[in-house]
Amino acid sequence: MASIKRLLIGSPMETKRLKHEKLPKWKALAVFSSDALSSVAYATEEILLVLMLLGTGVFFFSLPIALAILVLLVVVTLSYRQIIYAFPSGGGAYVVARDHLSTTTSLVAGAALMIDYVLTVAVSISSGVAALTSAFPSLLPWKVDIAIALVLLLMTLNLRGITESATVFAYPTYLFIISVLVLIGAGGWQLWHEGWHGFNYREHATASHFLSSGYGMFILLRAFASGCSAMTGVEAISNGVPSFKPDSSKNAAITMGWMSFLLGTMFLGITVLAAGFGVTPLEHKTVISQIGQHVFGNSIFFYLFQMVTMLILVLAANTSFAGFPQLASIIAHDRFLPRSLSARGDRLVFSNGIILLSVLAMILIVVFHGETHSLIPLYAVGVFLSFTIGQFGMVKKLWKEKNGRSAVTIATITTGMVVTGLVTIITVIAKFTQGAWLVIISIPLLVVLFYKIRAHYDKLGEQLRLDEQEWKRREKIVEPKVIIPISGVSKVVAQSIQYARSISHDITAISIIFHEDEERKLREKWEKFYPDIELKVIYSPYRTILSPMLDYINEIEKQTKGAPITILMPQFIVKKWWHTLLHNQTAIVLRFFLILKKDIVIATLPYHLKE
Amino acid sequence: MASIKRLLIGSPMETKRLKHEKLPKWKALAVFSSDALSSVAYATEEILLVLMLLGTGVFFFSLPIALAILVLLVVVTLSYRQIIYAFPSGGGAYVVARDHLSTTTSLVAGAALMIDYVLTVAVSISSGVAALTSAFPSLLPWKVDIAIALVLLLMTLNLRGITESATVFAYPTYLFIISVLVLIGAGGWQLWHEGWHGFNYREHATASHFLSSGYGMFILLRAFASGCSAMTGVEAISNGVPSFKPDSSKNAAITMGWMSFLLGTMFLGITVLAAGFGVTPLEHKTVISQIGQHVFGNSIFFYLFQMVTMLILVLAANTSFAGFPQLASIIAHDRFLPRSLSARGDRLVFSNGIILLSVLAMILIVVFHGETHSLIPLYAVGVFLSFTIGQFGMVKKLWKEKNGRSAVTIATITTGMVVTGLVTIITVIAKFTQGAWLVIISIPLLVVLFYKIRAHYDKLGEQLRLDEQEWKRREKIVEPKVIIPISGVSKVVAQSIQYARSISHDITAISIIFHEDEERKLREKWEKFYPDIELKVIYSPYRTILSPMLDYINEIEKQTKGAPITILMPQFIVKKWWHTLLHNQTAIVLRFFLILKKDIVIATLPYHLKE
Repeated sequence: MASIKRLLIGSPMETKRLKHEKLPKWKALAVFSSDALSSVAYATEEILLVLMLLGTGVFFFSLPIALAILVLLVVVTLSYRQIIYAFPSGGGAYVVARDHLSTTTSLVAGAALMIDYVLTVAVSISSGVAALTSAFPSLLPWKVDIAIALVLLLMTLNLRGITESATVFAYPTYLFIISVLVLIGAGGWQLWHEGWHGFNYREHATASHFLSSGYGMFILLRAFASGCSAMTGVEAISNGVPSFKPDSSKNAAITMGWMSFLLGTMFLGITVLAAGFGVTPLEHKTVISQIGQHVFGNSIFFYLFQMVTMLILVLAANTSFAGFPQLASIIAHDRFLPRSLSARGDRLVFSNGIILLSVLAMILIVVFHGETHSLIPLYAVGVFLSFTIGQFGMVKKLWKEKNGRSAVTIATITTGMVVTGLVTIITVIAKFTQGAWLVIISIPLLVVLFYKIRAHYDKLGEQLRLDEQEWKRREKIVEPKVIIPISGVSKVVAQSIQYARSISHDITAISIIFHEDEERKLREKWEKFYPDIELKVIYSPYRTILSPMLDYINEIEKQTKGAPITILMPQFIVKKWWHTLLHNQTAIVLRFFLILKKDIVIATLPYHLKE
Repeated sequence: MASIKRLLIGSPMETKRLKHEKLPKWKALAVFSSDALSSVAYATEEILLVLMLLGTGVFFFSLPIALAILVLLVVVTLSYRQIIYAFPSGGGAYVVARDHLSTTTSLVAGAALMIDYVLTVAVSISSGVAALTSAFPSLLPWKVDIAIALVLLLMTLNLRGITESATVFAYPTYLFIISVLVLIGAGGWQLWHEGWHGFNYREHATASHFLSSGYGMFILLRAFASGCSAMTGVEAISNGVPSFKPDSSKNAAITMGWMSFLLGTMFLGITVLAAGFGVTPLEHKTVISQIGQHVFGNSIFFYLFQMVTMLILVLAANTSFAGFPQLASIIAHDRFLPRSLSARGDRLVFSNGIILLSVLAMILIVVFHGETHSLIPLYAVGVFLSFTIGQFGMVKKLWKEKNGRSAVTIATITTGMVVTGLVTIITVIAKFTQGAWLVIISIPLLVVLFYKIRAHYDKLGEQLRLDEQEWKRREKIVEPKVIIPISGVSKVVAQSIQYARSISHDITAISIIFHEDEERKLREKWEKFYPDIELKVIYSPYRTILSPMLDYINEIEKQTKGAPITILMPQFIVKKWWHTLLHNQTAIVLRFFLILKKDIVIATLPYHLKE
């Protein structure tokens, strides 16, 4: 066991090796943007999939929807650039809300963020596998298996503790950016020469009667909400300001600008190409891969493009492996999550958080059969909810401080907050029946759970506090009453009795028999070896050991008021693991139940077998 | 947990309720023959499936093969009728071989029988589900699930302890016998009127060139071996002689005769009808169901026939639930299997044996996708091997006794032995590549396992034996050295120290810290409360507890030669199960490893939390 762990995870690392590296802008862009940029691999498709409910005739509407999302992106970017300057120490929505709003609000943000981290893994990995199977359809039957394998790979790498800032992680991001820009360039050139042969405004006219209905508008809103999945992860840079080289705020703000510009360009470009080429979503071929095939044909470039897309999506999933355990440890440190989530493992990473994230993501992947489209509706609610709460906290803090921050800053962040708040509401309404309800139910449930956990720890602390008053009323020290369950006379019994004599003079052996005629023989042998120790024999007609044992302990408790009761249990330690199966595990079951039900000490004596 | 168990399994039963009922012949026939008679539901099909390798042109050969199997049945029946008179106390091949041949031979028989019991469950249930899906093809996708559900149902019923001799179990057997006889009668009448329109001797001539080749002969032998699956379970009556009403031997012999007569008639009748109607094996419709549909049409009788067929097959599987745990308990009593298989549970049944059988059968069903045909090749080897060993043991005993048993008896059983021995060899050769190799490998592996288990128990007995010599050299009694791991000063620590004081004066508290600066604060508080107790603080740079703990114990061991070391470990007992997740489970892991590696006593103190 331990050696397998070492092989996979590596040797333990000292606490002192925890350190932070400062990143140049070009590297920071790669490190913090893979989540945001990778979403262009699926965002356009999600818009088209929703529009399909009204027929392909309305596909032209993907363009105005994409423009609306670009406007949203600009508003959010401006707001977060102000935040970068105002809060150079970083800190996500949870910390900001905790410090400047109320506990409940911060827990809502925390719950939303945790759900989104899990969804980022599930969505990015599913989408990455879709990129792979679009190029190699023969892999389709193993879609879910490949996704699970990728999650397990990320889990193992992160349990080893990968340095997120390693230069090697910068390559896929830039490869992806270049690939998409080349795609857009070449595709644009083709479109120019071939002419716009996809969906156009003329169809708009025939489709517009759909939209006059409330249902049509509702579908448009839903398409917008789905497209907003392109925005996930844009706040990452603002949380990472301390990792930038000085002047860190300025560098982070510049990087944020570049990131948004790239994201906007790529997203718009892909949406235009999809409309221009007349791409329709297919079940087993992603929209972006159809564009890729249209532009690159079946050449090696198409396959390379798909591999790069998959790589960036896996990298995007990996960002959650840094974010989720970090957030969970902060919440656990505030005692709203189990303490075990706040402890660093022997490789200096938050091992339990990493494992928890992997397990949850794998459950989502299995339940939703690795379908990106089924997971997307759960996505945007949490993202925009935490955007809104985070910005609200910032505004409130700036307002309180009044330390000369310009009104522009406050106005910009307030605008961001209002807009993201509106998007949250739109998302909740437009995607409620598609799965968003699951998130909307989960968030309050998680908040309740957080409070219950905190209440348990608080009460525990009270119960365990040792005050001097109480401590001074020290109880009288009485020898324990020792009970030794036996089934015959053997070396194990001899060892138990030897130990019992070392801790007490009040010793009773107890034997539970299933046939009444066993008593005589046992007593005879006992008298020969241990005439000075009392032997109690109990006949159990139902061949159970636990209940006669409990009855006997109850009886003893009544007799010996106050004296501690100790039960000595021998345990065979076998040389080969499978020998365990050859021994009765009654002792283990018995120990479990006795300690659960009674206030007695159970002393386990190992008996190491020679073979 | 306990209450779910009670609901499913019922209340515990006293040991004294173990009793035996004496059966009249008609009931005994039903109880002991379901396994044998039910095999006519698949035996003919198995012959045809093998013959299909040569084309349907050779299907006419199913008739001579069936006749050969009938001859075999007569020989085995005559032999077992003699055995019934010679060994009225019953006893299967394992016991006979153990008492009259060698241990190894008996273990070979035991292994073969255990494998066959598992296969009986897997084959009968799979075949029963095939009867169901032949009538209701829409159930096909859930084939494996239904099979698993049936095994779980049988497991639950048997854990409750069903009386195998209950009259209710007699009905399905007689219903099945009557149904098949009606089928044969009506089918024969149809055949007479419609004329023989299936496979006939004329095709034989065209097919005979196949058979002139060695391959053709080999396939014929393989078809014969597959057909021998009809013979499984015919020995059941000879093992059950003590259950018959007196004169039990005579009654058992008469019943055996009837059983064989019915089995032979039904098997031959179905084979003739299959040939006459020209039935070909289909993937999703059993041969017997095709005959049924031919005779009964799509009337209600066809569906009833399928249900009765399924019922008898489930009943056949149920016989293994009596046989396997009984055999396992006998072998376990001889210490060749884990002791836990020999203990009766609280409902007086061998619970562990029942569960083991169910698990193994379910594994077979899942691995072989619930296909009867894939399981059959594994089947006959074990059956005929145990027939042969059993008869060999009987002959040897009779020979040794020479108490006037007639030469006829010995000659009859010897003939049976030789014939079944030959069939064993044929089966091994003809079906080796089809899966029989699995059984041929498993039997010696099981025998090796049996011996390894026995060796472990023997060595254990030697190690544990307490001789008076040794016992008199009683060791000096020394107070234990008590170690209390702590992480702070709390009521839990107070309770631990209170207990420690009651058993020893040599107490040390030990605290393992992850940051060097924690020591000062801890020592300050400790001095205030327990100045008289030594506190050892160890800094663990790798944030592990186990290894510094082991190092410390090693050190203590060197210092205090001979004195027992006791580690006090508090364990929180929570009020709600999920609170367990909120507490560090380090103590449990620590206890597990410490007790494995060191010769120390671990005393667990429960701390029952109030909420």
